[in-house]
Amino acid sequence: MPKDLTRRGPVDATEVPRFAGPDTFARLPRLDEVGHADVAVVGVPFDSGVSYRPGARFGPAHIRQSSKLLRPYNPALDTEPFGAQQVADAGDIACNPFSIREAVRTIEERARALVDQGMRLLTLGGDHTIALPLLRVMAERHGPVAVLHFDAHLDTWDTYFGEPYTHGTPFRRAAEEGLLDPARCLHIGIRGPLYSRRDLLEDAELGFRVVRSDDFETEGTRGVVERMRDRLGTGPVYVSVDIDVLDPAYAPGTGTPEAGGLTSRELLTVLRGLAGLDVVGADIVEVAPAYDHAEITGIAAAHVGYELLSVLAAEVSGNAPKDSHGRFVP
Amino acid sequence: MPKDLTRRGPVDATEVPRFAGPDTFARLPRLDEVGHADVAVVGVPFDSGVSYRPGARFGPAHIRQSSKLLRPYNPALDTEPFGAQQVADAGDIACNPFSIREAVRTIEERARALVDQGMRLLTLGGDHTIALPLLRVMAERHGPVAVLHFDAHLDTWDTYFGEPYTHGTPFRRAAEEGLLDPARCLHIGIRGPLYSRRDLLEDAELGFRVVRSDDFETEGTRGVVERMRDRLGTGPVYVSVDIDVLDPAYAPGTGTPEAGGLTSRELLTVLRGLAGLDVVGADIVEVAPAYDHAEITGIAAAHVGYELLSVLAAEVSGNAPKDSHGRFVP
Amino acid sequence: MPKDLTRRGPVDATEVPRFAGPDTFARLPRLDEVGHADVAVVGVPFDSGVSYRPGARFGPAHIRQSSKLLRPYNPALDTEPFGAQQVADAGDIACNPFSIREAVRTIEERARALVDQGMRLLTLGGDHTIALPLLRVMAERHGPVAVLHFDAHLDTWDTYFGEPYTHGTPFRRAAEEGLLDPARCLHIGIRGPLYSRRDLLEDAELGFRVVRSDDFETEGTRGVVERMRDRLGTGPVYVSVDIDVLDPAYAPGTGTPEAGGLTSRELLTVLRGLAGLDVVGADIVEVAPAYDHAEITGIAAAHVGYELLSVLAAEVSGNAPKDSHGRFVP
Amino acid sequence: MPKDLTRRGPVDATEVPRFAGPDTFARLPRLDEVGHADVAVVGVPFDSGVSYRPGARFGPAHIRQSSKLLRPYNPALDTEPFGAQQVADAGDIACNPFSIREAVRTIEERARALVDQGMRLLTLGGDHTIALPLLRVMAERHGPVAVLHFDAHLDTWDTYFGEPYTHGTPFRRAAEEGLLDPARCLHIGIRGPLYSRRDLLEDAELGFRVVRSDDFETEGTRGVVERMRDRLGTGPVYVSVDIDVLDPAYAPGTGTPEAGGLTSRELLTVLRGLAGLDVVGADIVEVAPAYDHAEITGIAAAHVGYELLSVLAAEVSGNAPKDSHGRFVP
Amino acid sequence: MPKDLTRRGPVDATEVPRFAGPDTFARLPRLDEVGHADVAVVGVPFDSGVSYRPGARFGPAHIRQSSKLLRPYNPALDTEPFGAQQVADAGDIACNPFSIREAVRTIEERARALVDQGMRLLTLGGDHTIALPLLRVMAERHGPVAVLHFDAHLDTWDTYFGEPYTHGTPFRRAAEEGLLDPARCLHIGIRGPLYSRRDLLEDAELGFRVVRSDDFETEGTRGVVERMRDRLGTGPVYVSVDIDVLDPAYAPGTGTPEAGGLTSRELLTVLRGLAGLDVVGADIVEVAPAYDHAEITGIAAAHVGYELLSVLAAEVSGNAPKDSHGRFVP
Amino acid sequence: MPKDLTRRGPVDATEVPRFAGPDTFARLPRLDEVGHADVAVVGVPFDSGVSYRPGARFGPAHIRQSSKLLRPYNPALDTEPFGAQQVADAGDIACNPFSIREAVRTIEERARALVDQGMRLLTLGGDHTIALPLLRVMAERHGPVAVLHFDAHLDTWDTYFGEPYTHGTPFRRAAEEGLLDPARCLHIGIRGPLYSRRDLLEDAELGFRVVRSDDFETEGTRGVVERMRDRLGTGPVYVSVDIDVLDPAYAPGTGTPEAGGLTSRELLTVLRGLAGLDVVGADIVEVAPAYDHAEITGIAAAHVGYELLSVLAAEVSGNAPKDSHGRFVP
Repeated sequence: MPKDLTRRGPVDATEVPRFAGPDTFARLPRLDEVGHADVAVVGVPFDSGVSYRPGARFGPAHIRQSSKLLRPYNPALDTEPFGAQQVADAGDIACNPFSIREAVRTIEERARALVDQGMRLLTLGGDHTIALPLLRVMAERHGPVAVLHFDAHLDTWDTYFGEPYTHGTPFRRAAEEGLLDPARCLHIGIRGPLYSRRDLLEDAELGFRVVRSDDFETEGTRGVVERMRDRLGTGPVYVSVDIDVLDPAYAPGTGTPEAGGLTSRELLTVLRGLAGLDVVGADIVEVAPAYDHAEITGIAAAHVGYELLSVLAAEVSGNAPKDSHGRFVP
Repeated sequence: MPKDLTRRGPVDATEVPRFAGPDTFARLPRLDEVGHADVAVVGVPFDSGVSYRPGARFGPAHIRQSSKLLRPYNPALDTEPFGAQQVADAGDIACNPFSIREAVRTIEERARALVDQGMRLLTLGGDHTIALPLLRVMAERHGPVAVLHFDAHLDTWDTYFGEPYTHGTPFRRAAEEGLLDPARCLHIGIRGPLYSRRDLLEDAELGFRVVRSDDFETEGTRGVVERMRDRLGTGPVYVSVDIDVLDPAYAPGTGTPEAGGLTSRELLTVLRGLAGLDVVGADIVEVAPAYDHAEITGIAAAHVGYELLSVLAAEVSGNAPKDSHGRFVP
Repeated sequence: MPKDLTRRGPVDATEVPRFAGPDTFARLPRLDEVGHADVAVVGVPFDSGVSYRPGARFGPAHIRQSSKLLRPYNPALDTEPFGAQQVADAGDIACNPFSIREAVRTIEERARALVDQGMRLLTLGGDHTIALPLLRVMAERHGPVAVLHFDAHLDTWDTYFGEPYTHGTPFRRAAEEGLLDPARCLHIGIRGPLYSRRDLLEDAELGFRVVRSDDFETEGTRGVVERMRDRLGTGPVYVSVDIDVLDPAYAPGTGTPEAGGLTSRELLTVLRGLAGLDVVGADIVEVAPAYDHAEITGIAAAHVGYELLSVLAAEVSGNAPKDSHGRFVP
Repeated sequence: MPKDLTRRGPVDATEVPRFAGPDTFARLPRLDEVGHADVAVVGVPFDSGVSYRPGARFGPAHIRQSSKLLRPYNPALDTEPFGAQQVADAGDIACNPFSIREAVRTIEERARALVDQGMRLLTLGGDHTIALPLLRVMAERHGPVAVLHFDAHLDTWDTYFGEPYTHGTPFRRAAEEGLLDPARCLHIGIRGPLYSRRDLLEDAELGFRVVRSDDFETEGTRGVVERMRDRLGTGPVYVSVDIDVLDPAYAPGTGTPEAGGLTSRELLTVLRGLAGLDVVGADIVEVAPAYDHAEITGIAAAHVGYELLSVLAAEVSGNAPKDSHGRFVP
Repeated sequence: MPKDLTRRGPVDATEVPRFAGPDTFARLPRLDEVGHADVAVVGVPFDSGVSYRPGARFGPAHIRQSSKLLRPYNPALDTEPFGAQQVADAGDIACNPFSIREAVRTIEERARALVDQGMRLLTLGGDHTIALPLLRVMAERHGPVAVLHFDAHLDTWDTYFGEPYTHGTPFRRAAEEGLLDPARCLHIGIRGPLYSRRDLLEDAELGFRVVRSDDFETEGTRGVVERMRDRLGTGPVYVSVDIDVLDPAYAPGTGTPEAGGLTSRELLTVLRGLAGLDVVGADIVEVAPAYDHAEITGIAAAHVGYELLSVLAAEVSGNAPKDSHGRFVP
Repeated sequence: MPKDLTRRGPVDATEVPRFAGPDTFARLPRLDEVGHADVAVVGVPFDSGVSYRPGARFGPAHIRQSSKLLRPYNPALDTEPFGAQQVADAGDIACNPFSIREAVRTIEERARALVDQGMRLLTLGGDHTIALPLLRVMAERHGPVAVLHFDAHLDTWDTYFGEPYTHGTPFRRAAEEGLLDPARCLHIGIRGPLYSRRDLLEDAELGFRVVRSDDFETEGTRGVVERMRDRLGTGPVYVSVDIDVLDPAYAPGTGTPEAGGLTSRELLTVLRGLAGLDVVGADIVEVAPAYDHAEITGIAAAHVGYELLSVLAAEVSGNAPKDSHGRFVP
């Protein structure tokens, strides 16, 4: 998999120390510098849909700042995510913090504009509200998609305070709008108290299956990857990672933390298990830096982004032998 | 000023340690425990009107938690704020975080209900948006009031992203609605960059005068108190304290901090200078605990509340000799 | 398991946002509001028995504050802990911070008063000293009880500086007083350095067996649950959770942290394995908020409380089918 | 004032970087290294007398750690505090955390042992309880002393929960025991709420006068120094600095913070005004590191210690011309 | 002073929220976007010259991040610093962290390249080592300059561990190289312990005079501004602001903090007093974000930058009437 | 294994509380107090070789401060690490922060001087640069050694900015200098992005094999211990623990954190698996306290040191039966 020399990767760390230089994701070029990209990393600093701790509006800047140590070669997937494809930072989608509906509209339009130029998107939130407009764009292009949803929460509730567009409701709206393939959706990492037993029943009716956080105790990452791949099958997959899928120890910087979550190693290992699947887009949401410490959460999110980009790159290059974890076999 | 024994004050710290017991402001009784109060301390956990760092929704709980060391006797004003009047904690006004307009309506209704029962309100925000519905209730009862506004910012801007009701606009709306006495309004603590020179001109047209933060360098608290009393005169005064009037060193826990602010001693000293004026209500806003440290900001806010309650109490008892700082002269 | 409509659960989050409203555990009603409860959650803000970092006196308030996201339905045990039984917050037991013996006496008296009204107690500490008076009340009512003790430390040491009542000695005192069933006591999570090999021998003589923290590496939660249930048998069980059983990554906010501890998922999973046993009371101790960050520790403690309440509720409702982890089998 | 070459000062920072080397105060020699000292810096890690936030038990270690930048020459007083006299670190007085009375006895004995060897003491607390045994030793040697007390609080309350020896009561006990010269005692920095007006009356009867924190607004440090020197006169003076005399912005790391306090510059300036007076001993108490940030509080405390040592040294060398602030006049 | 419409200012906050968008200083355009600028803001992320706490290498990114609230109009100087002149962010000067000498060379070359294009520089450090190469470029262009140096420390020491180029030595090197005008240099804010009395004597010989931090107690900002303007006269002035000139309460995020410092209001007020002088360049150094909290230090530094840019702009526009504080007189 | 009474262990915690007393590692005697030791714990406060976050210069003091809870008996290995051998704290090796080469020389000389007196060293860094001079001393005494290297990173890169001696290059230099036994070296915990696939190939050529962090998911600690013991064989082993081998949740206080790391329990368990091997020395590096919280990282590092000392002691006493995890079998 030789590096395509016409592609521009991160700033060279042997010339510009990692604590200097641009504030783009992984120190990648800006989209306006390269003109076009295979994958655009785009921020959506919006958190007006949250129900508890706000602050994910500062998430995109924080994840970028925490991504400066990312290097070009991913040994776990034997790929060069910035070399096998052109990745660029498309900056932020600015949206109205005082109107959820206008913001949802803006996100949809701006995301569509990028996708229409042939880019796949890795979106940095922002709260989970933003998944809805992104899924609209996905479904418009690919038809109903499987959502692979990493989260402590189902996010298929109906409304809060009468508001249908919030960070707890995107996947119910998406299902209602026909954006999801109900035979292939999956939550991973669900845990903690719910409102009622009905939550799970309705969630299942919307097309979701559940891998609970404590299933990792008995099945291990290997078992979870198998269930995940079985469920996702071969169609288009949209990956949505709410950082609170991690335990608060691994992701204190988030808005609705629940004890008993995943470790970052479990999450990264499972994400690598996506290699070879048809991932059409992804987001990382709910990073609230005011509650982070020493970038623990930001670094975890940056690594999540890196594995997602690697999965996208692996699809492009596509030929590496892999074990059942989706990992490169040397 | 003998203490009225029928009034219930804070929990006795010689029986219940200050780290135990109720989470009400200053460990006062709840309003439902005493039935009626002269002054109600009420929280408004709402921050959907902020433009930068959110989090003031957690302000009421934080100020209450930081108020546990408040004791019954205020030597600076020679008054017993919990003895000269019945003060009670009325809990929080719950409002819709997803609709500013509905929230403003709810605040107005709930505040009116309390005021209509004969209570004066000390409101704990929440962001500065909440000042507007509170002023509506004040003006309804007292006619146009003087606003004494402690803040780094003017908060007389027009709209943000088309939204007229935000934390940067309450006093323009209030002026437009005729709630303010344009001959008696005053900002104290203004500093930092503005959008344009026009900001100050329009602010003056709305009826405000300005004591700048750096005026304290040359005039001292004594000079500021004199200008303040001159401006406020003898009519009804509503006091609105945005905690960012303090320097970030004294109030890191806020949403739009500006360097060069007041010290907490300056602020408390000036507030004591209100003694004898006709204060009809007050709020303390923009305490964002996620950015606080060791309750620095919360304690400052709690003391601001204590001085405001003392000023209200001094009006009730009213007979202590005072110097030009409004301080008790032994 | 239909919800008993005469019971009062938490404040409805669709009417009062979770960042508003009461500071009771899980936003439950106060005991004085409901008059009587099946289970009382009671705080004991006392930490004068600690040997290293103090601060657990602020533990009850912190756990309550960290419990606001708890919702009514526990899918892992298919139970409604606030619906199957009346749970209420009984506030704090105020005790003398300057006299351990007087405090121990006060705790015993106040706990007995609640238990005598037919309530089971979930106690929020405070340091581990408080387990002794609680065990006195338990044994008085139930005879010698099995103690299931989650902790990094044995807490069966003899005295410190000549003081017999400290946070390192409650279970030796309890054993000496005949409060424990020596055939059924168990520590889980023990790790780290001891004073001497004799510590373990004496601990065994007092009736304790040990599941070490690193046993989880080889046995997994499933194996630990089996050993636990084997040891506890069918008699009354008192559960005492020192939050330092968790690794410092999961519980930085504690007084004597030891590396190499449990994850929160391991702890919650094992607690669920108690379903069906005769749990007569429980405590959660050693939460020291000054060392916490972003409520990581507080949230873990709140979830521990939630699972304990669910176990108590499961006993009440009692009919859900469960696997060997004590988890609901759908 | 040539440096006495037989004295050992701090480790040389040009040979051992300040982040390396010993953890003694100001990197001074240990007392056992030099055998004897003119002034011993001694820690008393005891905080069982506190009424709110504990943690001052870690104060001595924290102040030492925060003192590494102290250099040998004090330009403000034109003196070399480590050159004009031998200063050494005498380590910590270990005392029983579970018995206030035994601890008070231990502190008294250990302090007496040092003083009997001809040393003056700069004591690092610990909570304010420790001032009582230290004053006993002072009075034993010098007769009743003037106490110059920097604090937000009077610390002349009677008892808490029946306990006479706490951090809020040392000066009442000292007065009762006849350790104080009632004509010369002074509080500086008093502010915030009291229990009742009687507090001030009783305090005055015990021999104290008060410089309030807000007196600095009108009198400035110059005025305060004059009042201080007038009050202290020419007899022996014991200086007790509760770090909460500083505003929480300057000293977040303390147990009972009150808004409206002194700046560190005000405190240091006033301390320099002691030059030439007969200071017989001093303490710095109530530094609670768990609430500190970036050593703000620790550094302030270390500088307070440095100025106190300079005042002691100035007395030894004694001949520098000074202005009314006690500052060197070049 | 109409805004030159051909100049590009910060991103419009009514279109892009302040928590979104570019990470340039004050959200200004990058230098490559505008091609040329009157003033370039440039980062120098270098801290290999520090003697105590490192971390100023992250200073430029932190100051930029803390500058997002800066608005276009400065009422204190009645100027539009981004409108009266083109200001742009020139990014970072990347330099070798393992070789001080190579780094000094790189900084000099890169700074010269910018200055040779006709820009004045506002440099964001980095540690104080960087002032030397910047002064070389200044002197090359303007002849020996007056240094106005805000700092707790003199920074005219000779060597550390044999190294002549460190953060404690730039101004001695500069004086030796003839870069300074010895009749016009001034330190403001000096305080704290020195190595010996000789430090002050040698400093004076190098051409510096001193305004001590505690001089603000007696002279006020007005007096200091007068002394400053007297000393600086009419020739070229280079302003170097070590953020540790502020008290640790106002600037915890720095490497060698000293108690007793300036408030941010004092510093900003004095900086405004520069209006009308011939400022040829400036730097802000020693911001170490790992020790900052809630951007207290970063915000102070950003405001320092804003006032310096305003002074530069005032020179350009130059015609506003000012009082003795250099402030606009309406 | 009776304790040798002539050896001096830690200060007795029943006489001196753990928050009092000396700041040596585990409160052990200083080397100068005991004259000689079997194992010397020595600090190397040096971090001029880091490429990202600095601050490990404060590592030795932080680890010592975090080690105060270590008790004398290690039940996991049934050994008394301070009783079976004399362990003493040799203080810090002071070295030039401005010259990496001079520092490397100083470390080598000072370490050799200790080793030549017959001590084994447990070194507390400092950054990873320090491993090179330590390995020189090891190889000089023992011939080429196996390096057992716990780290997220390979640390076999060549140069940074032309500098061959940095924290990313020690093991390449060591291999080039012939200090390592290429048949027995092993990395454990490697993860995260690399520069290129070549990194792994060159690393293998230098003599290293790799246990990846995610191998723990499938092999468990038991499997890893087996691979480790197979690789290390029977010759001399030097253990180098970069604390960033732990996940950032467990070690936020470090310079180049990578998500997906080990838990502290995994690390401690694997270290215990060294029992019986010929460990000739060890280091713990890259603890950067400015990024730590509540001593999470420091405590983990202290426990790592404790297990290493236990392994050294087990070799001395040597006779305890052990299972395949190297753990005592009762």
